[in-house]
Amino acid sequence: MNEKTTFKPCDLVIFGALGDLSRRKLLISLYRLEKANLIEADTRIIGIDQHEGDNSGFVGIIHNSLQEFLNEVVDEQIWARFSARFSYLKIDLTQMDQYQLLNTVINGQSRVMVNYFAVSPFLFTNICQGLAKCGVLNEESRMVMEKPIGHDLKSSQEINDVVAEVFSEKQVYRIDHYLGKETVLNLLALRFANSIFTTNWDHNTIDHIQITVAEEVGIEGRWDYFDKTGQLRDMLQNHLLQILTFVAMEPPVNLEAQSIHNEKIKVLAALRPITKENVEQKTVRGLYSAGAIKDKPVPGYLEEDGANTESTTESFVAVKVAIDNWRWAGVPFYLRTGKRMKYKRTEIVVNFKQLPHNIFKESFEDLPSNKLIIHLQPNEGVEIQMLNKIPGIDENIKLQKTKLDLSFSDTFKNSKIFGGYEKLVLEAMRGNPTLFLSREEIEQAWTWIDSIQDAWAHTNAAPQPYPAGTWGPEAANDLIARDERAWEDEADKSI
Amino acid sequence: MNEKTTFKPCDLVIFGALGDLSRRKLLISLYRLEKANLIEADTRIIGIDQHEGDNSGFVGIIHNSLQEFLNEVVDEQIWARFSARFSYLKIDLTQMDQYQLLNTVINGQSRVMVNYFAVSPFLFTNICQGLAKCGVLNEESRMVMEKPIGHDLKSSQEINDVVAEVFSEKQVYRIDHYLGKETVLNLLALRFANSIFTTNWDHNTIDHIQITVAEEVGIEGRWDYFDKTGQLRDMLQNHLLQILTFVAMEPPVNLEAQSIHNEKIKVLAALRPITKENVEQKTVRGLYSAGAIKDKPVPGYLEEDGANTESTTESFVAVKVAIDNWRWAGVPFYLRTGKRMKYKRTEIVVNFKQLPHNIFKESFEDLPSNKLIIHLQPNEGVEIQMLNKIPGIDENIKLQKTKLDLSFSDTFKNSKIFGGYEKLVLEAMRGNPTLFLSREEIEQAWTWIDSIQDAWAHTNAAPQPYPAGTWGPEAANDLIARDERAWEDEADKSI
Repeated sequence: MNEKTTFKPCDLVIFGALGDLSRRKLLISLYRLEKANLIEADTRIIGIDQHEGDNSGFVGIIHNSLQEFLNEVVDEQIWARFSARFSYLKIDLTQMDQYQLLNTVINGQSRVMVNYFAVSPFLFTNICQGLAKCGVLNEESRMVMEKPIGHDLKSSQEINDVVAEVFSEKQVYRIDHYLGKETVLNLLALRFANSIFTTNWDHNTIDHIQITVAEEVGIEGRWDYFDKTGQLRDMLQNHLLQILTFVAMEPPVNLEAQSIHNEKIKVLAALRPITKENVEQKTVRGLYSAGAIKDKPVPGYLEEDGANTESTTESFVAVKVAIDNWRWAGVPFYLRTGKRMKYKRTEIVVNFKQLPHNIFKESFEDLPSNKLIIHLQPNEGVEIQMLNKIPGIDENIKLQKTKLDLSFSDTFKNSKIFGGYEKLVLEAMRGNPTLFLSREEIEQAWTWIDSIQDAWAHTNAAPQPYPAGTWGPEAANDLIARDERAWEDEADKSI
Repeated sequence: MNEKTTFKPCDLVIFGALGDLSRRKLLISLYRLEKANLIEADTRIIGIDQHEGDNSGFVGIIHNSLQEFLNEVVDEQIWARFSARFSYLKIDLTQMDQYQLLNTVINGQSRVMVNYFAVSPFLFTNICQGLAKCGVLNEESRMVMEKPIGHDLKSSQEINDVVAEVFSEKQVYRIDHYLGKETVLNLLALRFANSIFTTNWDHNTIDHIQITVAEEVGIEGRWDYFDKTGQLRDMLQNHLLQILTFVAMEPPVNLEAQSIHNEKIKVLAALRPITKENVEQKTVRGLYSAGAIKDKPVPGYLEEDGANTESTTESFVAVKVAIDNWRWAGVPFYLRTGKRMKYKRTEIVVNFKQLPHNIFKESFEDLPSNKLIIHLQPNEGVEIQMLNKIPGIDENIKLQKTKLDLSFSDTFKNSKIFGGYEKLVLEAMRGNPTLFLSREEIEQAWTWIDSIQDAWAHTNAAPQPYPAGTWGPEAANDLIARDERAWEDEADKSI
């Protein structure tokens, strides 16, 4: 199938249509998809919220949101086509009888009902019951939700149980927008369509792998929310573990959702739990203090608006992960993610093993090993670091680290590169479940994350400070230096 | 050691200083080395030829040669420094008593005598005897010679025997200018400093290897010389086999000349001989007919000036080579070289194996295999052909062949890239034998080449015509197509 394939149009019902998630992200993405002619002509968008209002009021609010958050001028022709899809229903989501209103707009015969839960999970029970009661759902209906899907295994199970009362697992689309990123998807191509990597992708040839998700931003006015969550649960549990599964999984039987989910689950199940005995060796918690981002002073976490100065939540986490399976035995995965770090950067660094013998000793005493670097942010691309001879007329062969580069934006000039989130919203409307998270995956991830959280609770150590605008606390360098390795940013400097 | 290391200066004695090789190539290269400040201050250049003349006459002739062949304006300051090194001696090389003149200029105590034999091999006996007789040689003296070193094993042995009477093997520097090319030397770095290739370099991962040396030129006024030689002996025996040894050899113990020679000899000794039974399956001979190079009409080989229309010499040869050793069992090397081909192009194409299973069937039925392409001419560089996902919002993962590129001239902007010949001339003056050919190598190569020449003599088939400006006769495509493979230029087109 390709872009021209026709999918069944849908009634996209947004619960919480006037909330932040809907106005700042979902509707912006939908507009972009509209602009790219990717939304079915007959698809409709139905906003639901508790505020009084009618269709034209809703249209006006969304127009304002676009102007505020789109980062480009709203094209009025596209807007006209887009806003013609809109309806608005005022429903108090806690009032079961009000859901009957949906029957006035939904047509389950000609369109698939896609329910986007853009509200806090505490409302999920209400919505599910309301939907069930009013009788608009059928087997084709879907529901879409985003993180946080719980804050530990138990709360995640509760949410999934509530949803499962009304939607079967194959109707549920759980979004992690990292799975829509081109370079994450390209991992499948890199790994399973290129023999030079396929034959180089295990403990025989790989020394270790680093996954970094560094943010420049702080907590962006969400202090309260973030402080209850922390970086481990807010970022590592989902984004970093998702990247890890794509890097580490066995070749799937095929590209069907079920096959890929199976392989991802196997990786998550093979993560060696962190225990209270080894948590201090295997993890680092950090908290940013005042510092500067690109020479601009920024406050520390405990000085942010609304901060509780007694907080011991972490804004940075680094973990040394062992995957207990045949392929990755003895190959550590070093994960780190933090806020207020030096640059915004998401990357995977595959460090290949050192060569067994160095015949270039005279000119290069420590031969740097090859690296495959996969950039996810800010620019998507792939890079191979290797050694070449420096041209010249020296008697000895002198080597230099060089890069073979593939920048996605340069190479694929004619392809519009969509954001991961847009891609996933479209896939949810199309009904292609491959890039969404299965319940089992999420629960497997929480199981492992809980092992860390429990160990932390046991040691009860405060996070270690790092100045905003750095790569995290010194302990994060120690974590990897104990294994005689270095984070990519440091490794770069040393040569 | 590096460029600043001081080498002992030398007396570079050019036998045949007024001949073509000396004036068109050797002295041009020496001027370039002078310009780059790479010639020792005390090094002198002594021209020897049979023509009447003195130093200033010699200086004048060489100045004219530079103006004619240098392709840049002669810098008079560099020229002044360069020409101050010159002396000229008129010696009839067949007259033993005249060699005594050398004693008037050579100082074997403070400088190494480097004898460059820029004359036809039939004079080698005279020169060697003359040098021996006049007593200027010592253990440090060297001799330098270029191809053709014979036209078969026997004649090659004769030349080497003559030289060996006076010079020990370690005093003899045999030039193949391909061994001075950056990308040939870089093969050592690529193969032995990069684990991603080291672990991918044998019959387990490589399907086959192609080596192409395509020339645009015809026989350039050397019809007589070339017709006695043919493309097999003129190009394949030396350049292509040298490239092949660098691609195929085992890791040398170290980078010493002896270690590298040992490994190269092992490869040459493992070449499976061609027999009269299989020569028609394994080789193709071609001869260019009239055609066009870049839209300019050019005559056929048999219509060139001085042509004997009865000639059956080949201007094109393609060979399927088997290397009978552990690493390369079952991996064919396809070699081809010809004159009057479509473009000037020298390249090595390492074709990796197809993946065992294709999970991208829906979007790419025949997954192209990875390739490592090493460009030697016209531009030096390295390129990896691989598959990446085409960015986009398709339901299926679509793949595209993409290139990771390393162009030497772009990457190493600050390094002056010397020609292979210049590098070798300098190495001969410095006394670094690594990049020169050992007697054993040359004789091993001739042994194998003779097997082909003998088989051809037996079948006595005329070469197959191909129009100038094409990739050779159709039979060359058949040679590789029988194995369900294609030459790189064709492979490119098919996707």
